[in-house]
Amino acid sequence: MNHYGKPLTDVTLNDRFWNRFRETVVREGIPYQWKALNDAVEDAEPSHCLRNFRVAAGKESGTFGGFVFQDSDIYKWLEGVAFSLRWHPDAQLEAIADEAIETVAAAQQADGYLDTYYIINGLDRRFTNLKDNHELYVAGHMVEAAVAYFQVTGKRRLLDVAIRYVDCIASAIGPEEGKLHGYPGHPVIEMALMRLYGVTGDEKHLRLAKYFVDERGQSPLYFEAEDARNGNHFYWKNSPLRYRYYQAQQPVREQKDAEGHAVRAMYLYSGMADVARETDDAELIRACKTLWESATRRRMYVTGAVGSSEHGEAFTFDYDLPNDTVYGETCASIGLAFFARRMLLLEPKGEYADVMERALYNGILSGMQLDGKRFFYVNPLEVVPEACEMDAHKRHVKPERQKWFGCACCPPNLIRTLASLEEYVATEAAGTVYVNLYAGGEIRAEGLTLKVETNYPWEGDVKLTVLGDAAEGKKLALRIPGWCREWSLAVNDEAAEVEVKDGYAVIDRPWRDGDGIALALSMPARWVRANPRVREDAGKVALQRGPVVYCLEEADNGSALHNVRVGCAAEAEICWEPDTLGGVVTLTTDGLRETEDGWDGALYDFADAPDTRPVKLRWIPYYAWANRGVGEMRVWVRN
Amino acid sequence: MNHYGKPLTDVTLNDRFWNRFRETVVREGIPYQWKALNDAVEDAEPSHCLRNFRVAAGKESGTFGGFVFQDSDIYKWLEGVAFSLRWHPDAQLEAIADEAIETVAAAQQADGYLDTYYIINGLDRRFTNLKDNHELYVAGHMVEAAVAYFQVTGKRRLLDVAIRYVDCIASAIGPEEGKLHGYPGHPVIEMALMRLYGVTGDEKHLRLAKYFVDERGQSPLYFEAEDARNGNHFYWKNSPLRYRYYQAQQPVREQKDAEGHAVRAMYLYSGMADVARETDDAELIRACKTLWESATRRRMYVTGAVGSSEHGEAFTFDYDLPNDTVYGETCASIGLAFFARRMLLLEPKGEYADVMERALYNGILSGMQLDGKRFFYVNPLEVVPEACEMDAHKRHVKPERQKWFGCACCPPNLIRTLASLEEYVATEAAGTVYVNLYAGGEIRAEGLTLKVETNYPWEGDVKLTVLGDAAEGKKLALRIPGWCREWSLAVNDEAAEVEVKDGYAVIDRPWRDGDGIALALSMPARWVRANPRVREDAGKVALQRGPVVYCLEEADNGSALHNVRVGCAAEAEICWEPDTLGGVVTLTTDGLRETEDGWDGALYDFADAPDTRPVKLRWIPYYAWANRGVGEMRVWVRN
Repeated sequence: MNHYGKPLTDVTLNDRFWNRFRETVVREGIPYQWKALNDAVEDAEPSHCLRNFRVAAGKESGTFGGFVFQDSDIYKWLEGVAFSLRWHPDAQLEAIADEAIETVAAAQQADGYLDTYYIINGLDRRFTNLKDNHELYVAGHMVEAAVAYFQVTGKRRLLDVAIRYVDCIASAIGPEEGKLHGYPGHPVIEMALMRLYGVTGDEKHLRLAKYFVDERGQSPLYFEAEDARNGNHFYWKNSPLRYRYYQAQQPVREQKDAEGHAVRAMYLYSGMADVARETDDAELIRACKTLWESATRRRMYVTGAVGSSEHGEAFTFDYDLPNDTVYGETCASIGLAFFARRMLLLEPKGEYADVMERALYNGILSGMQLDGKRFFYVNPLEVVPEACEMDAHKRHVKPERQKWFGCACCPPNLIRTLASLEEYVATEAAGTVYVNLYAGGEIRAEGLTLKVETNYPWEGDVKLTVLGDAAEGKKLALRIPGWCREWSLAVNDEAAEVEVKDGYAVIDRPWRDGDGIALALSMPARWVRANPRVREDAGKVALQRGPVVYCLEEADNGSALHNVRVGCAAEAEICWEPDTLGGVVTLTTDGLRETEDGWDGALYDFADAPDTRPVKLRWIPYYAWANRGVGEMRVWVRN
Repeated sequence: MNHYGKPLTDVTLNDRFWNRFRETVVREGIPYQWKALNDAVEDAEPSHCLRNFRVAAGKESGTFGGFVFQDSDIYKWLEGVAFSLRWHPDAQLEAIADEAIETVAAAQQADGYLDTYYIINGLDRRFTNLKDNHELYVAGHMVEAAVAYFQVTGKRRLLDVAIRYVDCIASAIGPEEGKLHGYPGHPVIEMALMRLYGVTGDEKHLRLAKYFVDERGQSPLYFEAEDARNGNHFYWKNSPLRYRYYQAQQPVREQKDAEGHAVRAMYLYSGMADVARETDDAELIRACKTLWESATRRRMYVTGAVGSSEHGEAFTFDYDLPNDTVYGETCASIGLAFFARRMLLLEPKGEYADVMERALYNGILSGMQLDGKRFFYVNPLEVVPEACEMDAHKRHVKPERQKWFGCACCPPNLIRTLASLEEYVATEAAGTVYVNLYAGGEIRAEGLTLKVETNYPWEGDVKLTVLGDAAEGKKLALRIPGWCREWSLAVNDEAAEVEVKDGYAVIDRPWRDGDGIALALSMPARWVRANPRVREDAGKVALQRGPVVYCLEEADNGSALHNVRVGCAAEAEICWEPDTLGGVVTLTTDGLRETEDGWDGALYDFADAPDTRPVKLRWIPYYAWANRGVGEMRVWVRN
């Protein structure tokens, strides 16, 4: 059975750091979103989501409400619920989910079709606008929910609905004559079909995923023909993006750069990596690596944010990483973690886990308020609240998280990601268990079970205990993070000299019940510089400790943060503050603040360097910013 | 007779610096624009401008073409022609202009109305959309052209047309019951009417100007009512600008900040200053000063550019001066010079002349290619060509000047400004002749005629010679520019100790024919800093010599200018280069360039300060940038 056939990676998380975030998922996120889907949040616009299904099923009269992709909200919710039930069983919640699945199933048409937008507005138009109407995107999320719900609960109801809908799609779209040679405007169905293939083992699901990947961007361009048929105006015609918005500017194997809408890009590349791995397609693997390098070595923020521009929520060009006009959608960082996890499955290299970790502890987690009640769509690295209000080109940047969104993609995406963190902890390859992410819990790999104890990311010590004798020849590979320059390893209290290969310390020895492995990762606060080609970070530094990127907030350091400078010789004082921001390590460094002293109020003057006064700078983890009211924030500080 | 009654300030310019630019006006600008107005430029979209007049006059059939304000193009051209005829008589050109005026006049309706958009599309709709349809704006430019043409040629034809049209407007709009209580969405008619009042002496022209100024922004808001009547969607409804776009958010006397569309703002404030001066209205004068201070002390670029954002081509908020996404429209800097000149008429203070000079030598002049054939609409202070192409939010910033514009406001505005530079040289008040701008030529003030010789702005020496005995008690005030920290003055070769008041060295002595005044302004290159509140200039300096702001271009200094740093102790080498960029003083300073040496290609790293290597930096005047192909440019450089 292939990898996907496994129910889910067999990991239990019980981690000091992540527990508090995951608790908000079951306490706040899932119940709130259920209310939203049912139009029961008093001060919010109605979602229409579940009502659309009832209308489509003929159980209620009315018109379609919400975005064309509104159906996807219930699927993302169901997927999050499924994952949560694994580590937080809740019979009542499961009953609600079962009922929601019935509501969905009731709208399915005789031929398997199931998209309420078209069921309500006219089935004759279905599959006519794959480019913009998100039909295959919605189907992809349905499949993802169906697979997760089946894997966790064993219930096939939604899975069967999804399989029937996929059959319906495959009867209309595909390489055969008479079918539409199309593919989704917004990817996700590619990786969804690969997950489906994992549980069904049915080659047709693999074939359809591969078709969507490979047909994309072929000439003549399907989207162009579709627009012509529909008489559609091509929205991105005069944009620098054009078909790059959809990653359809050329066949994916020829693409050299991470381009266009960042979430779509990340979802596509994730699906490509799934297909590449399953089919062992060397060319497609190379394409994935090329796109990975573009995205992470030239177009990614230090927080793991991707998508430099609000225009198209998209990538722009190499080393173009503005901190204040960035888009950096939470979903895009989540997509980056998806992609990274799949690259790790392709080959166990620490580089992938480094990026995955960077995204998880920074640009993803920043998307949620600490109480789990508000969310960021956009994750800036520099904020001046007045600019967000008064400068139209920064209005997408919000200085505080929002309650919910009309286009509610980020909150449920965060929920399903946090609810399935188990998937990011470990991978297995060639008899080796790779520990990618350090978090307390249990890893039950084939032939090797490990208990993990750690206070990561606040401390660099990780204690692993072997539970039960391991199978013979089983190797253990512990990731040495890219940020770590000094570390030591002991097995049963004896220093172990091990080789580091591709970012992993690989220990090859027989494992017996009770064996203890102690990994000590030295975790000083370090100043980070960006590649000299990054214009916006020239002359600036960021501060990072372990995987956590820090920032300065007005709440601690006053406003006008552009006048703050740091000296990189300065050592940071490291302080665990249990009562701050839900418990964080803060950093304190010496700095200088340029003052207005001696400046006579002119706008420009011939003047010497500004007066400075020494200041203590207090840094907090970037993910925790904007939890203490509206104020300035900045990650990159003048040096 | 009031000030406006004077034909024009009696100045002859014959200046080494300005002559070359003014020659392009008569050699390139005026003939090219005439071709454009007649749809005779081969590779350009037709203007339709003159054709619209013929259609409106019933001499040709067809529909209206071009923008709703297309008529204004011929008026701006005629105004430029008028000014040019003063210093460059050209009988053939004058004949063409006379004929154009006949084409205009032929379209005038029996009641005086004259806007081809409404004549062609339906007169019943006239004056129904003052907010957006530019009717009064077009009328304003007609009046300005008419007055200039009359003042220079003595011909009344267009003046009479304009007076009749103004009567028609005044019969429809005004304070009286039954009239529309409206005002222009785009100001200009206010200052135009004041110029008209200057030649007619007719109080009704003053009254209408004052009405437009004072009615603006009154409650209930006229524009709101107008939109309601028209069922118009309010375009700026969800923008931070709203009615501030039109400077109509409140009555002008209550406005505290320079807001909204920068050109409109500057034109309005200019009209306000005209009205304030003529009516000696202390409250309105105070309002002008408040807006002046906002615009120039908190919202102006070092180049004299105004309008920080492309959104609404508008002001944003205090000290918000991004260098790379700036709008900085050429017309807005021209408007700033208009405003400054009028403030000088209100009170002779060097501060106003300083800003006027800053705009003229930098942000205005940068609008035109050295050969006079191409123009900038937007005048950025930092350009990376790839960003202009790939970042949608910088696409308004062009790395090279454009041939012409569909909305051709800047080129003719530049032409009429350069053609009327005489107006900026001197002012008179209370028996004193104020020399505001140093340029070679002759100033014939009442009772005092001066010959001026100088190589300004490349050298700081100005030689003035009194021609003929002056009237008794006539004082001479020479501006000591704000940029000048050391200067000396000699009269007839004897050092003169004079008091400096409000930025002018005032010499009070009898003047005899042949008296020589030698002003020596010390003109070293100086490093400029911005107010510490300006975020985008923190840690950066600009370089200025005399009134000229400098910049670094890729052509001289390579790309990646963000990695260039300057040491402010460095003295600049000053070099007159007659064969460079039409003859400029270049500056050379020592600098450092951060290199990629020792950087391993990673996007982020824990690293010490980058390696640097010493470089010689070559600076050129900002106005002359983008005359040597496409490349990076930057005014503010890291320090």
